[in-house]
Amino acid sequence: MFFASDNWAGAHPAINERLSRESARFAAAYGTSDLDKAVEARFNEIFGREVSVYFVSTGTAANSLSLASVARIGGVVFSHSEAHVIEDECGAPDFFSNMRMVPVDGENGKMDPANLASGIAGFPQDSLHHGRAAAVTLTQATESGTIYTLDEIETLSTIAKANGLPVHMDGARFANALVALGTTPAEMTWKRGVDILSFGGTKNGCWCAEAIVFFNPELAKDFAFIRKRAAQLFSKTRFISAQFEAYLQDDLWLGMARHANTMADRLRAGIRSLNSTRLAWDTTSNEVFAVLNKASAEAAQARGAKFYDWPAPHAMPEPVKDDEMLIRLVTSFATTEDDIDQFLSICKAG
Amino acid sequence: MFFASDNWAGAHPAINERLSRESARFAAAYGTSDLDKAVEARFNEIFGREVSVYFVSTGTAANSLSLASVARIGGVVFSHSEAHVIEDECGAPDFFSNMRMVPVDGENGKMDPANLASGIAGFPQDSLHHGRAAAVTLTQATESGTIYTLDEIETLSTIAKANGLPVHMDGARFANALVALGTTPAEMTWKRGVDILSFGGTKNGCWCAEAIVFFNPELAKDFAFIRKRAAQLFSKTRFISAQFEAYLQDDLWLGMARHANTMADRLRAGIRSLNSTRLAWDTTSNEVFAVLNKASAEAAQARGAKFYDWPAPHAMPEPVKDDEMLIRLVTSFATTEDDIDQFLSICKAG
Amino acid sequence: MFFASDNWAGAHPAINERLSRESARFAAAYGTSDLDKAVEARFNEIFGREVSVYFVSTGTAANSLSLASVARIGGVVFSHSEAHVIEDECGAPDFFSNMRMVPVDGENGKMDPANLASGIAGFPQDSLHHGRAAAVTLTQATESGTIYTLDEIETLSTIAKANGLPVHMDGARFANALVALGTTPAEMTWKRGVDILSFGGTKNGCWCAEAIVFFNPELAKDFAFIRKRAAQLFSKTRFISAQFEAYLQDDLWLGMARHANTMADRLRAGIRSLNSTRLAWDTTSNEVFAVLNKASAEAAQARGAKFYDWPAPHAMPEPVKDDEMLIRLVTSFATTEDDIDQFLSICKAG
Amino acid sequence: MFFASDNWAGAHPAINERLSRESARFAAAYGTSDLDKAVEARFNEIFGREVSVYFVSTGTAANSLSLASVARIGGVVFSHSEAHVIEDECGAPDFFSNMRMVPVDGENGKMDPANLASGIAGFPQDSLHHGRAAAVTLTQATESGTIYTLDEIETLSTIAKANGLPVHMDGARFANALVALGTTPAEMTWKRGVDILSFGGTKNGCWCAEAIVFFNPELAKDFAFIRKRAAQLFSKTRFISAQFEAYLQDDLWLGMARHANTMADRLRAGIRSLNSTRLAWDTTSNEVFAVLNKASAEAAQARGAKFYDWPAPHAMPEPVKDDEMLIRLVTSFATTEDDIDQFLSICKAG
Repeated sequence: MFFASDNWAGAHPAINERLSRESARFAAAYGTSDLDKAVEARFNEIFGREVSVYFVSTGTAANSLSLASVARIGGVVFSHSEAHVIEDECGAPDFFSNMRMVPVDGENGKMDPANLASGIAGFPQDSLHHGRAAAVTLTQATESGTIYTLDEIETLSTIAKANGLPVHMDGARFANALVALGTTPAEMTWKRGVDILSFGGTKNGCWCAEAIVFFNPELAKDFAFIRKRAAQLFSKTRFISAQFEAYLQDDLWLGMARHANTMADRLRAGIRSLNSTRLAWDTTSNEVFAVLNKASAEAAQARGAKFYDWPAPHAMPEPVKDDEMLIRLVTSFATTEDDIDQFLSICKAG
Repeated sequence: MFFASDNWAGAHPAINERLSRESARFAAAYGTSDLDKAVEARFNEIFGREVSVYFVSTGTAANSLSLASVARIGGVVFSHSEAHVIEDECGAPDFFSNMRMVPVDGENGKMDPANLASGIAGFPQDSLHHGRAAAVTLTQATESGTIYTLDEIETLSTIAKANGLPVHMDGARFANALVALGTTPAEMTWKRGVDILSFGGTKNGCWCAEAIVFFNPELAKDFAFIRKRAAQLFSKTRFISAQFEAYLQDDLWLGMARHANTMADRLRAGIRSLNSTRLAWDTTSNEVFAVLNKASAEAAQARGAKFYDWPAPHAMPEPVKDDEMLIRLVTSFATTEDDIDQFLSICKAG
Repeated sequence: MFFASDNWAGAHPAINERLSRESARFAAAYGTSDLDKAVEARFNEIFGREVSVYFVSTGTAANSLSLASVARIGGVVFSHSEAHVIEDECGAPDFFSNMRMVPVDGENGKMDPANLASGIAGFPQDSLHHGRAAAVTLTQATESGTIYTLDEIETLSTIAKANGLPVHMDGARFANALVALGTTPAEMTWKRGVDILSFGGTKNGCWCAEAIVFFNPELAKDFAFIRKRAAQLFSKTRFISAQFEAYLQDDLWLGMARHANTMADRLRAGIRSLNSTRLAWDTTSNEVFAVLNKASAEAAQARGAKFYDWPAPHAMPEPVKDDEMLIRLVTSFATTEDDIDQFLSICKAG
Repeated sequence: MFFASDNWAGAHPAINERLSRESARFAAAYGTSDLDKAVEARFNEIFGREVSVYFVSTGTAANSLSLASVARIGGVVFSHSEAHVIEDECGAPDFFSNMRMVPVDGENGKMDPANLASGIAGFPQDSLHHGRAAAVTLTQATESGTIYTLDEIETLSTIAKANGLPVHMDGARFANALVALGTTPAEMTWKRGVDILSFGGTKNGCWCAEAIVFFNPELAKDFAFIRKRAAQLFSKTRFISAQFEAYLQDDLWLGMARHANTMADRLRAGIRSLNSTRLAWDTTSNEVFAVLNKASAEAAQARGAKFYDWPAPHAMPEPVKDDEMLIRLVTSFATTEDDIDQFLSICKAG
């Protein structure tokens, strides 16, 4: 019953097997091997266009260096007020980009378009004292487990573009959003105005595989240097490439995400069906936010279930009562039906 | 015949096997799992004292963040003029530490003590305009394939300490140096005045495993934040821990380094024995610098041998002639006797 | 009728005269002359204790380097949401300190203590992902023209201290606040828990004279280097010292601030007395925020009056109507009664 | 006998008088007043073309921000090994530009063209690991008191341009070089390939007046933000403008520089004529490097003469003997014939 985070899961056997194979051979270092090139080319197919791809070690690096690539002196970056870049990365995006993250409020973990527009309006391009708008970053799926529709992405990126701003997508849970929407990588990104993508593999069955995908090659022109100076160029880059090769082969990545989402659906259905539990709000990705009575929550924990308490956001359909607890449950490629059912049965008993 | 670098090798089967095992389970993220703690404790045993250990993704990160941990405003860091930190990391050490790397000359890739002393003397602690000495970093084994003796390390660290400066060791090839000297990790580091160590596993049979070891815990007090803000805290840190667990178990790491050094010995002996080749200078680690006649070198390359041309350093026992080529050959845990013998036989024929 | 800002005024004749005198002689550079030392010592008297003083060129530098002196990796700084450091300095405080400015709301331009406490609580010292509290900065007088009482300062600094945080005061209008409160420099700063002060002279009759005053000498130990590396060490520092000497002599600085405040009082009284104008909110410093009908405002501008439109804050006693305009009027040592009376008479006619 | 540095002098009466006049009036802040614009336009005339001009507070700021304006990730900047940017600014150029200063040797304080070319060749544009060439900066007059001829400037800038690199000139003593060469500002800068100039007024009779002049407007496009974020935008910028207005009026600046050079000529002639003193090497600016017997030097100091000991450079026509001392003597607009003659007479007696 490991629901603390999808990054508590291990790695998929197919990925593991591919790594084993890679470990037996020699190849050129620093991302220059044939495998590296082949996997980079694979991203072109995935996204239906020529892209520039750079591998890095962590999601923090993916987001921070993406923003560094569009850095402007005195620039500010707009993100949802609960986004990872502003809440959970110890200031790394500010450090690498030398820009401030500016929060944009919005319900359900999504930036409200009107708020984004007025936020940007507060930082005009000649705003020497206050600072100037430099980029917009959105998280798909969001930190609240919700997913931007294609129209919502386009609405936000249209606002950004009208102001000359590049759009970054934090796709730490890209695959989960993709299969939930039933769309294509192209539709969810560059066809909707996204310029740079943090394409996460780690939370979805890899052990360390994050890619920065540039749809606008102009933005990538200095990126090799940005990555190297940021200490993110692996000598054995091909071990990341190997993970991605397996990840992208035969739609493994989509299958894993679909499995995680399906497990979350099972969890959501179960929680809805019990008297002692309810969904804190609707989600469609592999994250479930539930309100449990404390007895149930503690019983589950006593039986080994792992999950995090979660701070109640400002607006919730129904507030958390004193004898209740708001928790986050995250499923992954490795979650089983048994995990779910055992958890639900504890809750039912509690 | 992959002699280009030890980072062209893959990963040792035992490490690979340990990763496979790790991939099958769930565990706490961000370096907080039981495995992470057990492996950290293992470093205490290896070094014969309590140490603070932090894993990072690359050697560049290990060096840069080590130096960042002792950063002083207006500080400068002394390294050999051919050291990785000053030559090969795209300014990452300067970027993360906000200090300038100052070169110290010395023969055989080693800082000359007198040069270090006079270098430090040029940057007194109250030197507001010129800058002030902040740290000394030495590379063991050196970039030239040579190895500091224990006395040489102590001599340099004594100079540093007399000036109140912490000493960092870039141990990208720590194990190779260790087995060549036949000494212990403690003797080669903190017992000789080293305060911080970049402990490299990647070049010696891991695929991505670098550790920063603090012998002086005071220097580590902010390091968790330094690492996180530098985007170097892996969610699945335990996959690095797993590599190190296997690496350190039953002296696997020493065995791999010993193998690499032995292969280098075989190469050195062969090169010495041929008329058409000679050693450019003496080395005792897994790096061999050889002068070949161009015909031999090209014949070897034509047959698939991989190695790099190398720029001739200022001082060489015997200069490189026009029809000769100075090359670097690096062996690793994965190098075989056959690789060596095949290469030598091509040279002999050439 | 120059009410745009107190930094539109020139320099007081006594300061000018002292600069003239200084220009005729030679003296040691980089802040090491007898004059520099004498003026530094003068700050000890002004503040009734031994202090460390460093001159810099701008208020932006004073604030940014003050915060840089207490920088922590992954740290955040709490300021009022309308403070200069977060609103008007192009990210300079973030740039020099490598920390993020975190807004704290509060009425009348003052941080609300409960908001500060809860803000700090959100960034505990071991908060690796979210970041950790590192400092509190408050502006005296505030950007809204209001002034923290001594008790209010103490309340905020007590919260900061309870969390181990240093307190910085942005005193760009320090003198105006001081005379308005009728207290002493010591009472308004270190006796109320302030550790570092940006002591501004430029807005109050100097042409370029800003000092950073450290009450806690421990915090200043690296500051000479911080200032030099920030390009803020003047070769002819003594011209700043000379300004401060004249500024502090015979209470000139207090006289100038008192004059500015008195002119603001006259303005406030006049605005209160007219039907077509009202005070947007109460202020006690040399800043006046007024609501004029647009006709009056335009008439005044047509006659040469200089002032800025001001964005309406969230909460105002009475909202600004469509035919009205919220403006800021700032008085200075150089404002005359005639300026005031002429402006009021235009408003009355408008 | 103040020969320690030209920054020990005060300010010229005409500049002082202009400042006095400025202090009596109100004007728009932050460099937007009519005076600011007029003085900026004046630079167009001085340089015979349209230029972009930005005032900053110190020479360190002028150099650091000039280099920041051409910053490239992983870039390095080439300067003479004794240049201010690498020797005397506490790492400020590295800090603001995030680039490393790379020393280029050359006699007489001038970069040797062959050394510059080979230095640049070591940092090709695709040099991901080692770093890439980003700019060349030369000092006119040099730190050794010598002056690049127009041809020498062109030779260096041609090398830079052939490699696509912008050229910066540190003109802390621009006027002294200009009058020594008897040329025009245009000839000594953009007509010889200089793209950005630190135009110093402080050492030549202003008290705080440094300008960054962009001949290539493309390089200035973000500069307003660079300056503001660097805390270098003065609210009362017009006091710098006022200094420059007086400085540039009726060739005051050239007159002051000519006077300083003439005083240095007198000093040089006197030193050459004495038995107990000699010139350490030839100079043509307002800096004189002399070798005195220690008795003379001490006698002069005892009588109040101010000058600095100077470290002997690697190559000198005649080495400094044990009973001798190498000193630097700097003249300024305020040096008198009496100062010189008194000093020489002490030396003669000594």
